Amino acid sequence: MEVGVHRLGHRLPRDGRLTTHVFLASRALGAKEGIYSGQRDPGLEESLAKAVGEWGGTFSLAYAPHWKQTLNERIEKGWEIIHLTMYGLPHKARLEEIRESSSKKLVIVGGEKVPGDLFKLADYNLSVTNQPHSEVAALAIFLYDLFEGKVTDDYGGRIRVEPSMRRKIVVRNRT
Amino acid sequence: MEVGVHRLGHRLPRDGRLTTHVFLASRALGAKEGIYSGQRDPGLEESLAKAVGEWGGTFSLAYAPHWKQTLNERIEKGWEIIHLTMYGLPHKARLEEIRESSSKKLVIVGGEKVPGDLFKLADYNLSVTNQPHSEVAALAIFLYDLFEGKVTDDYGGRIRVEPSMRRKIVVRNRT
Repeated sequence: MEVGVHRLGHRLPRDGRLTTHVFLASRALGAKEGIYSGQRDPGLEESLAKAVGEWGGTFSLAYAPHWKQTLNERIEKGWEIIHLTMYGLPHKARLEEIRESSSKKLVIVGGEKVPGDLFKLADYNLSVTNQPHSEVAALAIFLYDLFEGKVTDDYGGRIRVEPSMRRKIVVRNRT
Repeated sequence: MEVGVHRLGHRLPRDGRLTTHVFLASRALGAKEGIYSGQRDPGLEESLAKAVGEWGGTFSLAYAPHWKQTLNERIEKGWEIIHLTMYGLPHKARLEEIRESSSKKLVIVGGEKVPGDLFKLADYNLSVTNQPHSEVAALAIFLYDLFEGKVTDDYGGRIRVEPSMRRKIVVRNRT
């Protein structure tokens, strides 16, 4: 299963850190790529490149100025589009169906105002909860459930954490 | 089980929206109260009060200028302290133990720099993943797992969402 995350409507300065969190969480929870639309943000791209350089893996981040075009291109290539929104149907009831359908999935998270068209373009409009919460929270729980709670803790980077109950231990991987 | 979330080191303007997301997610995923330390932020308090006023429930938010004092007070009153950190031990292995221990739990999420003392004060230092991610993501997954994936979608507020696959439907609750 190949999973990408597309974040719509990135605005500076307000979304700078939130979008960084969206993509760090995407990477840490099993997504292979990130895409963002809205305002271009070199700082965001640098943060992610730095994280991947240090912590490993192959997560890539691309800027897509025209979100709808990007979405349509993916749809043509057989990607399934899953839009996470507090207005959608409960995600849990669809998880099994989604795991067994198309092998390429693009998960969309919006900003404050989501274009109405998205609800039509998406294969699924799903919610983790229908209460106001956070796209980072929704995405995290969705990916966590999608991959059945399996989390990879070592991406073979230059550094990794040695889990500890009492302190911060960062170790260098042997190369 | 009574769960509170304490966010340390809130800084303006950089943490404004992230901390809002921390507490909206806390509320939506079953926590009863929020506490924050660092810089006082009236905008944050207003956002949360507005969300509770419209969407219901009893989630409260308090400012605690001295985080360690607040933590020690809670510890004296029998609260269990669970610090979420990418350096900690995997949370899953401790979930059952935590569910069955003290009925009052304070979940701590840090900012960029977490005071070393916290690792000693906490009963648990736990990670959702040891890769860099997001305190919002870690908190969301931890609460979701703690409450065994049960999510309340209606808090009896003035408004609520009618879940839909194709559009945004917000309805007024009858009073």
